[in-house]
Amino acid sequence: MEGRVALRADHVLTMQSPDAEPIVDGTVVLDDGLITDLGGAAEMAGRYPGVPVTHLRGHALMPAFVNAHTHLAMTMFGGVADDRSLEDFLATVVPLESELLDHDVVATASVGAMVESHLAGVGTALDMYFFPGAVLEAAERCGFRALTGPVVLENEPPDAPGSTPEQRLEALAAWLADHPATDSWRPVVNPHSTYLVSPDHLRSAAELAARHDAVFHVHAAESAGEVATVAAMHSLHPIELLAEVGALGERTVVAHGVQLDESQIALLADSGTSVAHCPSSNLKLASGVAPVPQLLDAGVNVALGTDGSASSNDLDVLGAARLAALLHKTVGSGAPDPSRLDARTTLWMATRSGAAALGLGDTLGLLAPGAMADLVAVDLDGPHTQPIYDVHSSILYAAGRGDISQVWSAGRCVVRDGRHQLVDTDAVVSDLRLLGERTRGTL
Amino acid sequence: MEGRVALRADHVLTMQSPDAEPIVDGTVVLDDGLITDLGGAAEMAGRYPGVPVTHLRGHALMPAFVNAHTHLAMTMFGGVADDRSLEDFLATVVPLESELLDHDVVATASVGAMVESHLAGVGTALDMYFFPGAVLEAAERCGFRALTGPVVLENEPPDAPGSTPEQRLEALAAWLADHPATDSWRPVVNPHSTYLVSPDHLRSAAELAARHDAVFHVHAAESAGEVATVAAMHSLHPIELLAEVGALGERTVVAHGVQLDESQIALLADSGTSVAHCPSSNLKLASGVAPVPQLLDAGVNVALGTDGSASSNDLDVLGAARLAALLHKTVGSGAPDPSRLDARTTLWMATRSGAAALGLGDTLGLLAPGAMADLVAVDLDGPHTQPIYDVHSSILYAAGRGDISQVWSAGRCVVRDGRHQLVDTDAVVSDLRLLGERTRGTL
Repeated sequence: MEGRVALRADHVLTMQSPDAEPIVDGTVVLDDGLITDLGGAAEMAGRYPGVPVTHLRGHALMPAFVNAHTHLAMTMFGGVADDRSLEDFLATVVPLESELLDHDVVATASVGAMVESHLAGVGTALDMYFFPGAVLEAAERCGFRALTGPVVLENEPPDAPGSTPEQRLEALAAWLADHPATDSWRPVVNPHSTYLVSPDHLRSAAELAARHDAVFHVHAAESAGEVATVAAMHSLHPIELLAEVGALGERTVVAHGVQLDESQIALLADSGTSVAHCPSSNLKLASGVAPVPQLLDAGVNVALGTDGSASSNDLDVLGAARLAALLHKTVGSGAPDPSRLDARTTLWMATRSGAAALGLGDTLGLLAPGAMADLVAVDLDGPHTQPIYDVHSSILYAAGRGDISQVWSAGRCVVRDGRHQLVDTDAVVSDLRLLGERTRGTL
Repeated sequence: MEGRVALRADHVLTMQSPDAEPIVDGTVVLDDGLITDLGGAAEMAGRYPGVPVTHLRGHALMPAFVNAHTHLAMTMFGGVADDRSLEDFLATVVPLESELLDHDVVATASVGAMVESHLAGVGTALDMYFFPGAVLEAAERCGFRALTGPVVLENEPPDAPGSTPEQRLEALAAWLADHPATDSWRPVVNPHSTYLVSPDHLRSAAELAARHDAVFHVHAAESAGEVATVAAMHSLHPIELLAEVGALGERTVVAHGVQLDESQIALLADSGTSVAHCPSSNLKLASGVAPVPQLLDAGVNVALGTDGSASSNDLDVLGAARLAALLHKTVGSGAPDPSRLDARTTLWMATRSGAAALGLGDTLGLLAPGAMADLVAVDLDGPHTQPIYDVHSSILYAAGRGDISQVWSAGRCVVRDGRHQLVDTDAVVSDLRLLGERTRGTL
């Protein structure tokens, strides 16, 4: 925590409402991890005469991005199985995980992923991976907001060898009791999918999530192969199965949601379930194109995710946002329409919709008094970002990961001038290199 | 020109053949604007004992990217008409061009575009814009390889008011005589399209291009609207019309090639015509998805372009390559296939295919003795690019514009540690800002 500070920038995107106009030459005041005030720079200067001001000339200030679906530690497997289908990809990666993962490996790889995320302006991630304690340890070290929790699977996971599914559900209940929801964080129940978790265990997991105000985070309707598998096993579509076991609802995030028809979209909309759209992973694994315009039209909260770096291969939410905007103008059902997923809508998905998916939509993903002080400064003073006609367009269509110059997480400056302030990035890179060598040794 | 120098990097991607293995720890020797030798670092150290070596630890060295379709100076209009169709976009931009363009404006905007391009690792661009002399002046200043020439249009262009089309064809012939092809550069004949240039004038332009060994660079089959317009005017598809006037062939680059059927693909393949695929622009303007896998299967040389920044909105060829690879695995005719446009194929398109489209494929877009010394160094020592399992994958799917640390153009280091060496980038940004203010003043 730092004392009261003020950040001034040429453009302040508050994300207070979908059509909020940016403040031109605005100042945001931070205190004790929260945003306490914001407005025009002159007005704020008068109101807070002694407060130190960081003046970000040529920058836009906006909420930090939210990654609504990832597997952070999989950054250690980034590129190990490229240009293959989901099924072939899993056939390579799952044995590597059994062979290599332990608490320390996951902590080390997660630090790498969090530093990468921060440098790309991502402040929060909804994570699904083994050794969630290691992920939280890494988050503490990096000043990163990671929402995570135990993975639920029928098979033995790498972090609980020799256990039964029932024992693991008991351990999950204990973990949730030890990691209660707060104003700024929620625990996660991570059932892998409707094909790797039985309906009974999905139901138990959903009940635990409800009891502990946890996010229920599940892969569903990612590929045609998965839908066929689940139909063969249960005569239901994954979304129908989730509905049947009581797992849809406002605390649920469905990762992917590619293979959906109108009735399944209605189930998601009526239950208030969020979808984490992962365009890069879906295209790269040739899983398909999620019906995002239809989901938005139906009123579904659609957030953006990168998926794990082993499938996608980065943790760049702004990049995912740009890809989503480009893709859905042209591809998918219905006639092409260049006004779909316009710059404002898509930046909203990358921030406020992500926070809403995590149940933190009132206090994360926006700049407002009382909101968490998770912000990014985007440097728009480059030859690729000038001139600026509409700041939303410039950020979405022209800026990129390399233009994120400053990041604040809970009021703490974690990235300054493009460098992480809490973690030695060279050491992180060297750790990732070593994890790569260990992985190559087992291939 | 600098004297003989050697560049050493962890990975050297030669692009000498589609399946060439990268040299691990390799050295490339440059002399007088050309690559004179390359090989393993130890061998090269023995062979060139006194030559100064720049050792790029953690980097890959590869040919600089080639942008096979752009309108460089349109960077001044980047973002002025976003989230609109091609037709609406043109309705906004064309009047701005008439109002604002002159020699100095185009020179200034082109410098901005070339600096942006260089910083993104792009060394060469095929340009279509007014005031080609201003573009060449900018290229001289930036050390950039811009292939350009006069635009052919029925309407009066901003750079030749009061002239007739016939007078402009005479001026084109004179321009071509004044700007002869060399070993490292070719002039360009830039007929806008089959709907803005008459068949007779297209035929004359093609004859002039043939006579002067110029690139014939034309928009065609970009949108369904254009195809319908040309059908109504001439009862032909744009590609059929180009074939009929003798404009297809090995010196021709068709920009876009989105709306193509099998017979039109065959016309392109049989004539040796290249296609400049611009995925970002095509998606953003909702023009459609080019049948790239079918073009490649038919043997068409498919290069990559960004289009102008007013439609796309950047000049980042590596970004366009990643988008193309992701898109064509999933979208388009035929079943999704994640092995399509794999990392090697797509990086080849971004370098060697681009050079081939310009008729420079033997000496540009590859690292080989006698080739032009146009290279980029990609810094792969970031948390988002480590570990590396396959260097092609890491560059295509994980690295980005921000990881280009060094660029050489004709043997001259034009970007070092991410900073342009010949042009003051701050001044360029300030010039672009002013051009934005002038443009806003006329909106």
